[in-house]
Amino acid sequence: MNLEHALYSLDLAGVAVFAVSGALAAGRKSLDLMGVFVIAVVTAIGGGTLRDLLLDRHPIFWIADPAYLVVISIAAVATLIYVRLRRAPRRSLLIADALGLGVFTVLGARVAQAAGLNWLIVMLMGTMTGVAGGMLRDVLSAEVPLILRRDLYATAALAGAGVYLVFLRLALPDVWAIVAGIGTVFLLRGLAMFRGWSLPVFRLPAP
Amino acid sequence: MNLEHALYSLDLAGVAVFAVSGALAAGRKSLDLMGVFVIAVVTAIGGGTLRDLLLDRHPIFWIADPAYLVVISIAAVATLIYVRLRRAPRRSLLIADALGLGVFTVLGARVAQAAGLNWLIVMLMGTMTGVAGGMLRDVLSAEVPLILRRDLYATAALAGAGVYLVFLRLALPDVWAIVAGIGTVFLLRGLAMFRGWSLPVFRLPAP
Amino acid sequence: MNLEHALYSLDLAGVAVFAVSGALAAGRKSLDLMGVFVIAVVTAIGGGTLRDLLLDRHPIFWIADPAYLVVISIAAVATLIYVRLRRAPRRSLLIADALGLGVFTVLGARVAQAAGLNWLIVMLMGTMTGVAGGMLRDVLSAEVPLILRRDLYATAALAGAGVYLVFLRLALPDVWAIVAGIGTVFLLRGLAMFRGWSLPVFRLPAP
Repeated sequence: MNLEHALYSLDLAGVAVFAVSGALAAGRKSLDLMGVFVIAVVTAIGGGTLRDLLLDRHPIFWIADPAYLVVISIAAVATLIYVRLRRAPRRSLLIADALGLGVFTVLGARVAQAAGLNWLIVMLMGTMTGVAGGMLRDVLSAEVPLILRRDLYATAALAGAGVYLVFLRLALPDVWAIVAGIGTVFLLRGLAMFRGWSLPVFRLPAP
Repeated sequence: MNLEHALYSLDLAGVAVFAVSGALAAGRKSLDLMGVFVIAVVTAIGGGTLRDLLLDRHPIFWIADPAYLVVISIAAVATLIYVRLRRAPRRSLLIADALGLGVFTVLGARVAQAAGLNWLIVMLMGTMTGVAGGMLRDVLSAEVPLILRRDLYATAALAGAGVYLVFLRLALPDVWAIVAGIGTVFLLRGLAMFRGWSLPVFRLPAP
Repeated sequence: MNLEHALYSLDLAGVAVFAVSGALAAGRKSLDLMGVFVIAVVTAIGGGTLRDLLLDRHPIFWIADPAYLVVISIAAVATLIYVRLRRAPRRSLLIADALGLGVFTVLGARVAQAAGLNWLIVMLMGTMTGVAGGMLRDVLSAEVPLILRRDLYATAALAGAGVYLVFLRLALPDVWAIVAGIGTVFLLRGLAMFRGWSLPVFRLPAP
C-alpha cells in the first residue's frame, strides 16, 4: 500500500467519523431522519468543499468520487441503528474525532502546499479544512460553534498544520510530516479532553 | 412554447415564490425593509447559487440573467404591500412553495445530469438546489432549519430527484421525467401538509 | 501615490477595522483566543471572498496576497491587548466601521463593474462585499444579523454602490465616483448612528 492509498483510506475514515458526529448532533436537536442525513453530509464534507471552492479545484472531491457520499450514508444509517441498541460511546467518538480532525487538517494543508501557496495560506487552509465542517454543523444547529469556544479544537488544527509545514521545510520525508502533523492534532486534543487544557477565553462585558 | 422556455418560466415562478417566503420569514423577525430584501434574495437564489458554485458553472445563473433579481425585487415589494392590506394566504403559499421546491429540485438534478455526473451526485445536487435557499433563510433568522425537522421537506426533494432519474433511466421523454419529478415533490409535500405525514424523528437524550 | 495604491491601502485598512469588529464580537460571546482569530478572519475577508467566488476570480484576493492575513492577525492581537488596558472606543470604532463598509462596497462594485456586469448585479455585488463579512460574524455568533435589523447598514452600502454607478454613468472621473460612493455610505451610517435614522421595520404577527 503506497502513501496515496493510505491517505485516501484515512480520508474516508475521517469522513465516516465526522458523519457520525453530525448524525449525533442532529439527534440532540430532534431532527427527522432526512435532517440527520443532511447534517451528516454537511459535517463530513463541509471543510473539504470550502477548501476546493477557495482553491478553485474542480470537480470538488466528492463530486469526482461518489465513494465519499456512500461512506457518509452508511455511517449515518449505522449511527441511527447503533444508538437504538446502545449508548453512543462518547470517549471512543472523541478519539475518532481527533483522528478525523488531524487527517482533514493535514490533507487540507497538503493540497494547499501542492498548489504552491504561501505558508500562511497553507496553515489557514489546513485549519479550515479541519474545522469548517464542524462549524457548519453547529451553525445549522443554531449554536455558537463549540470549536470556537473551547477544547483547543481549531488550535490543535492550526498547530498540526504548522508542524506538518516545519517538517516539510526541514526536507523530512512526506510521510513523517503527515504523521507528525496528525500526531500533533491528536496530542493537543487529547490534552484538552483528558487533561482539561484550554486557551484563555476572551471575555468582554456586554456593551 | 418549447420545453426550455417552459422550464425558464417555471424557474422564475419558483424564484418569486421563494422570495415571498423569505420576505414573510423576515417579517416574523422584525427586520427592516432592506433586511427583508436581503433574506428574499438569499432564499430565492441560495440553492441555485450553491449548485452553480459546486459544479463550477460560470457565470452563476443570476449573474448571467438579471431577470432573476428583477423578479425577486418585484416579489419582495409585492409581499410588503400585500400584507399591509390582507393576511398572508398561508394555504396558497404552502402550495406555491411546494411547486417551487419541485421545480428547483428537478432543474438542479437536470443540470447535474447534463454534466454527466453519477446518479448519487445528481440526486444530492437536486435536493440541495431545492432546499439550500430555505436553509440559508432559517440560518440567517438564527433558527434550526425547519426543513431538517419535519414536513418531509428535504425528503420530498430527494424523492422527486429520484423519480426524475428513474424516468430518464427508463428512456422516457424528458418532459415526462420533469413532470413526474415535480409531481412527486408536490404529492409528498401535500401529504405532509394536509395529512400530517412525516418521517420518524431521531431523538437523543442530552449528553 | 496613484489610485490603485490608494485603494489597496484603503482596502487593507478596511480589513483591519473589520477584523477588530469581529474580535470584539467574539469577546462578547466568550470565545477562546483561537475563536477570536477565526471570527476576525471571517468578518474581514467574508464579503470579498464571496464576491470572488461568485465572479469566479481566482486566486481569491487573500490567497493571492498574504498581506491581508498578516493585517488581520495584527489587528486581532492588537485588539486583545488594547481591551485589557482600556475600554473599546465605541464611537471611534463605529466611524472606522463605516469607512470600512464604504471601502468594501465601492471596491466590490468596482470589481463587478470591471467584469462588465449589468448595473443591477454591480449594485448587489457591491452591497454583498460590504455586508457579508458582518453577516457571517453574526451567524457564527448565533444571532440574527444586526445589519438586517437596523441602522441603515445594508441600505447605506446599496446607496453607496448606486451613487458610485451614477457617477460613472455621468462619465465623471473614477476617483470622484469612488469618493462619492464611500462618502454616501459614510453619511448614511452617520445619520443612522448619530441621528437615529432608520428604515421602517416590517413586522408580521407570529403565525
